[in-house]
Amino acid sequence: MPDIGIIMGSDSDLQVMKEAGEMLEGFGLSYEYTICSAHRLPQATADYAQNAASRGMKVIIAGAGGAAHLPGVIAAYTLLPVVGVPIKSSTLSGIDSLYSIVQMPKGIPVATVAINGSANAALLAVQILALGDEKLQSALLEYRQEMAQGVLQKDQKLKDIGVQSYLEEKKS
Amino acid sequence: MPDIGIIMGSDSDLQVMKEAGEMLEGFGLSYEYTICSAHRLPQATADYAQNAASRGMKVIIAGAGGAAHLPGVIAAYTLLPVVGVPIKSSTLSGIDSLYSIVQMPKGIPVATVAINGSANAALLAVQILALGDEKLQSALLEYRQEMAQGVLQKDQKLKDIGVQSYLEEKKS
Amino acid sequence: MPDIGIIMGSDSDLQVMKEAGEMLEGFGLSYEYTICSAHRLPQATADYAQNAASRGMKVIIAGAGGAAHLPGVIAAYTLLPVVGVPIKSSTLSGIDSLYSIVQMPKGIPVATVAINGSANAALLAVQILALGDEKLQSALLEYRQEMAQGVLQKDQKLKDIGVQSYLEEKKS
Amino acid sequence: MPDIGIIMGSDSDLQVMKEAGEMLEGFGLSYEYTICSAHRLPQATADYAQNAASRGMKVIIAGAGGAAHLPGVIAAYTLLPVVGVPIKSSTLSGIDSLYSIVQMPKGIPVATVAINGSANAALLAVQILALGDEKLQSALLEYRQEMAQGVLQKDQKLKDIGVQSYLEEKKS
Amino acid sequence: MPDIGIIMGSDSDLQVMKEAGEMLEGFGLSYEYTICSAHRLPQATADYAQNAASRGMKVIIAGAGGAAHLPGVIAAYTLLPVVGVPIKSSTLSGIDSLYSIVQMPKGIPVATVAINGSANAALLAVQILALGDEKLQSALLEYRQEMAQGVLQKDQKLKDIGVQSYLEEKKS
Amino acid sequence: MPDIGIIMGSDSDLQVMKEAGEMLEGFGLSYEYTICSAHRLPQATADYAQNAASRGMKVIIAGAGGAAHLPGVIAAYTLLPVVGVPIKSSTLSGIDSLYSIVQMPKGIPVATVAINGSANAALLAVQILALGDEKLQSALLEYRQEMAQGVLQKDQKLKDIGVQSYLEEKKS
Amino acid sequence: MPDIGIIMGSDSDLQVMKEAGEMLEGFGLSYEYTICSAHRLPQATADYAQNAASRGMKVIIAGAGGAAHLPGVIAAYTLLPVVGVPIKSSTLSGIDSLYSIVQMPKGIPVATVAINGSANAALLAVQILALGDEKLQSALLEYRQEMAQGVLQKDQKLKDIGVQSYLEEKKS
Amino acid sequence: MPDIGIIMGSDSDLQVMKEAGEMLEGFGLSYEYTICSAHRLPQATADYAQNAASRGMKVIIAGAGGAAHLPGVIAAYTLLPVVGVPIKSSTLSGIDSLYSIVQMPKGIPVATVAINGSANAALLAVQILALGDEKLQSALLEYRQEMAQGVLQKDQKLKDIGVQSYLEEKKS
Repeated sequence: MPDIGIIMGSDSDLQVMKEAGEMLEGFGLSYEYTICSAHRLPQATADYAQNAASRGMKVIIAGAGGAAHLPGVIAAYTLLPVVGVPIKSSTLSGIDSLYSIVQMPKGIPVATVAINGSANAALLAVQILALGDEKLQSALLEYRQEMAQGVLQKDQKLKDIGVQSYLEEKKS
Repeated sequence: MPDIGIIMGSDSDLQVMKEAGEMLEGFGLSYEYTICSAHRLPQATADYAQNAASRGMKVIIAGAGGAAHLPGVIAAYTLLPVVGVPIKSSTLSGIDSLYSIVQMPKGIPVATVAINGSANAALLAVQILALGDEKLQSALLEYRQEMAQGVLQKDQKLKDIGVQSYLEEKKS
Repeated sequence: MPDIGIIMGSDSDLQVMKEAGEMLEGFGLSYEYTICSAHRLPQATADYAQNAASRGMKVIIAGAGGAAHLPGVIAAYTLLPVVGVPIKSSTLSGIDSLYSIVQMPKGIPVATVAINGSANAALLAVQILALGDEKLQSALLEYRQEMAQGVLQKDQKLKDIGVQSYLEEKKS
Repeated sequence: MPDIGIIMGSDSDLQVMKEAGEMLEGFGLSYEYTICSAHRLPQATADYAQNAASRGMKVIIAGAGGAAHLPGVIAAYTLLPVVGVPIKSSTLSGIDSLYSIVQMPKGIPVATVAINGSANAALLAVQILALGDEKLQSALLEYRQEMAQGVLQKDQKLKDIGVQSYLEEKKS
Repeated sequence: MPDIGIIMGSDSDLQVMKEAGEMLEGFGLSYEYTICSAHRLPQATADYAQNAASRGMKVIIAGAGGAAHLPGVIAAYTLLPVVGVPIKSSTLSGIDSLYSIVQMPKGIPVATVAINGSANAALLAVQILALGDEKLQSALLEYRQEMAQGVLQKDQKLKDIGVQSYLEEKKS
Repeated sequence: MPDIGIIMGSDSDLQVMKEAGEMLEGFGLSYEYTICSAHRLPQATADYAQNAASRGMKVIIAGAGGAAHLPGVIAAYTLLPVVGVPIKSSTLSGIDSLYSIVQMPKGIPVATVAINGSANAALLAVQILALGDEKLQSALLEYRQEMAQGVLQKDQKLKDIGVQSYLEEKKS
Repeated sequence: MPDIGIIMGSDSDLQVMKEAGEMLEGFGLSYEYTICSAHRLPQATADYAQNAASRGMKVIIAGAGGAAHLPGVIAAYTLLPVVGVPIKSSTLSGIDSLYSIVQMPKGIPVATVAINGSANAALLAVQILALGDEKLQSALLEYRQEMAQGVLQKDQKLKDIGVQSYLEEKKS
Repeated sequence: MPDIGIIMGSDSDLQVMKEAGEMLEGFGLSYEYTICSAHRLPQATADYAQNAASRGMKVIIAGAGGAAHLPGVIAAYTLLPVVGVPIKSSTLSGIDSLYSIVQMPKGIPVATVAINGSANAALLAVQILALGDEKLQSALLEYRQEMAQGVLQKDQKLKDIGVQSYLEEKKS
């Protein structure tokens, strides 16, 4: 029984969407990957969304590119919060995906993150689940602190070894 | 039993979509207006699309604005040709609607016309139906000839009365 | 002790943001309006975000226009889910607001809704809070059903009185 | 006597447009490729369009990039449905092609598909021809079912072997 | 026998295009207004362009909006320089018109001016005709000097009466 | 001898640019308005920029719209910091102005502010002049504090009288 | 004494601009390449433009990228027709270049061609010079006919050898 | 005690931002690189900005990409002039970065330069510091003269060896 469903419109989105799963894993949350398609499998998409809550899911993360209807269609069939990930498209760089996901009409929201921002989609899910879960709160806090620490270390290193060496080391 | 279904996501699209009905009327085709919503009435939308062919429809014209999923969702549930009309939106002028409709993935096409181009959506439906209908062919030809005649008359009038008078007459 | 904080960068955003409060009210949720500014009151913004959780807030809805940093800055200072509302701007129609809010870097997500979509921001907050609240679940379901009913009634009316009468009645 | 004409503005469009022919072939439809140019061969373009119907064509698929006038010019000279394929351009990614094709004025529609969406252009043609052809209806239905099956298989495989293996297999 | 042909796709472009005629008039050049349409009157458009040179025209100014094919189609049928005026469109503000006119393929150029820049289109025609015409050169020089003088006078006035009075006077 | 030159390409920019003067006035800085044009008065523009430093100016604020070359041309002729104000244009909303001003090549920078952001251009000039001027530093600090106070008061008022009354009072 | 001046803002534009010289060469026209910069060499740019006519030039072709002021600045200092070539930029794909060149204010036109369209800029110059030159008219006509012939040959070849062979041959 | 602080949101911006340091070095100005993040280290960012002036900094150069809040947040906490460098982003080419930086609200300006324009950001800082520093003025003048000389030399070389050789030499 996954806490979170990660669904995408095509297996070409998997490279981007796998960051969502990796992030959730870091927080010890269960999740399930699904490849579906609002256009090629409309009924299965509807079924997925309608059954998500009863299957125990709390948040659905949906990624899609181009005329990216999947997040909106999922949102139409469930009361669970749906996080939409616009996938960078080959022709319009994901602006089409972004507009198709974020510009939802009044009544059916999709919580949209950055183009290709599937890691943040997962973090948003964690933040939502952490509302009633102190352990998750602590884990989130720790994640933030480690992230902050990481930036501080990079800053220190840059100050220690200088731009030239830093860039060379980064490349290698 | 309407030949053509005209469906729109909201009654705020009606002002634009009514041009489609007027155009079809001029060609003596039967049609039916429906207000539905891929997001607020997803099941009804699916039903509409799935029953369209058996109800005798030949073409579906679907107009929507913003994250405009209606045409794509309809197309996913029917084998009939679906013509999509991107409605001009209040914030992004219909670019969001256009991208959401035209950028469909391989497998499920939507025949997209100009933003607010519902009259042309109807003409496209007429052209499709005219493929097997000589009377409709003649009507289309006549429509084109009248349209051409109209431009010629405007041109003649402009040459007769000059720019200043033409513009004044147009305003009044 | 409000469940939800609604914060905006300027009182010129209030006309849009008040829809968020009205929506929350419909669900019986408590909320608090705050005018703050990530640029003019950076410290107060930080304080607001840092204290939100301990003051009992569960979700923060932040609206801003132009170089819209408020939602991202709030998100940087709290572990609560932050919903960002891009406000339509006078020069770039809100595309600047949208990009400034949605394109957050990995680590600090903002759940972005449509330009001027503050009602949906509130609904998203409701959906999040409803995860652990059956009464809210029921209220949400009812909201959806009423919304669906509303579309069905409009559709029926359109079929009953026709386009012309419908549009006339709407105008008056 | 081809059922469908596939015309393009330049042989640099051929790589994209050949997907249209392949799709039509799958449905057993006859077609003919033509390289023409609304700008370099305006009279030949006009002749092509004017003779298309009498040569037995039912639908014309026209692809062009940049200031993509070919589909619109073809549409101006024929009563057949014209499907326009905006080709991705080297400088503006096909937004110029898209706008030049989809924003046709009232009276002369072009059924526009996604940027580089020539396969969908062909499917649209099939859907149009299938209106009076039960065999084609069945073939379309089968195509949809296979497509759906394909997505289901990918989904199952992903669930079977996991993200990491799936992505590795895909690359190799 | 007009020196310059001013052609536009619709009489809704006339308000903008009349500035071209007024400018030409100021330089004592003869011109002719024509309303034609690359889509509604394709053959007449071709005829117009093919006969322009033999009718004594030296430059053609063509204005169009949306999928603005007129300037490019004219250019395809004549060796005369064609100046294109993108007309501001109701939905995309003329970006569609601009892209449709300026992004011409190699071989058939259109000299494009600003959106709604029909006065500059006329000036460009004057500059072209002035190449072999000293009187026109002098007139152009005088035009430039008057224009410069006009700016200097405004500057002086602003310095004399101050911002507040200047703006009030301008309004009234 | 003005501290700051405010120059604009046309008197149609004056309504926007006057906010720059008003802001400078509040800080007790002297300034001079000039209407010039990089295109209609290129030599005068060059002279203006070349003489600015010797006339005692420290910063030049240049506003222009459309193909907005004025700030860049000024910057090419002076070593003084040049602040560019993109003016909102009637067709492209100032995106053309913004790109024309901000995208300067390596070697000649223009400090660009928001579209129509002439008040901020003035503030930037104040911040630059305040680097060697403690009194100006204090004035800036005071300005910031008043600005912050203003937001706090609005926030308090909103909390006191509520959304409805606040909006009504604002309108009247 | 060159007939045509080809000027560009940087030697990074040379790869694109050399197509202009090659085209002019094909028509036996003399030309001169100049690297100048409206920003780094403003006075030399002004001198170039002011002397162009007296040096015998008839048309100036100016290419520039980013905040592309060169064509407009040249146009401000000469009465000769100026053809502007927007160079594709690394960050904004040449949209910045295009807007900076085409959106010139009333009074100073620049004849703008497609992004990277330097060959068409040259053709435009040829068309302008051909107005008073029958030999050039014939050469232009021949160029068009050869171009048309080239398309016809490609079309014939495609029909002869088929898509697959055509694409393979093209690659090799 | 650095004259100028160069701060960036991530070490992925370093490749671009190092041009700023190199430029400052050429002018003998001291500077300090800092990697910080308005979102991951909000408090450190605030501290950095609040202490900048007392640490002797005169100008802060801040680079960031995507929802690029760093420059604006820095500007909110200091009275020093802040120069913002929009970093080219992987999905939106830096348009998101540009809008997030340049569209600051009234009260808190950020002096924005071109996308990836960090060298110009440094030059702007030099120009600001040169206001009270004759030696820096001379160095700036010399820089401009060398830059001009460089263009002249390229121009001469192109005229000496011709396009073909020039391009070959450039490649090798």
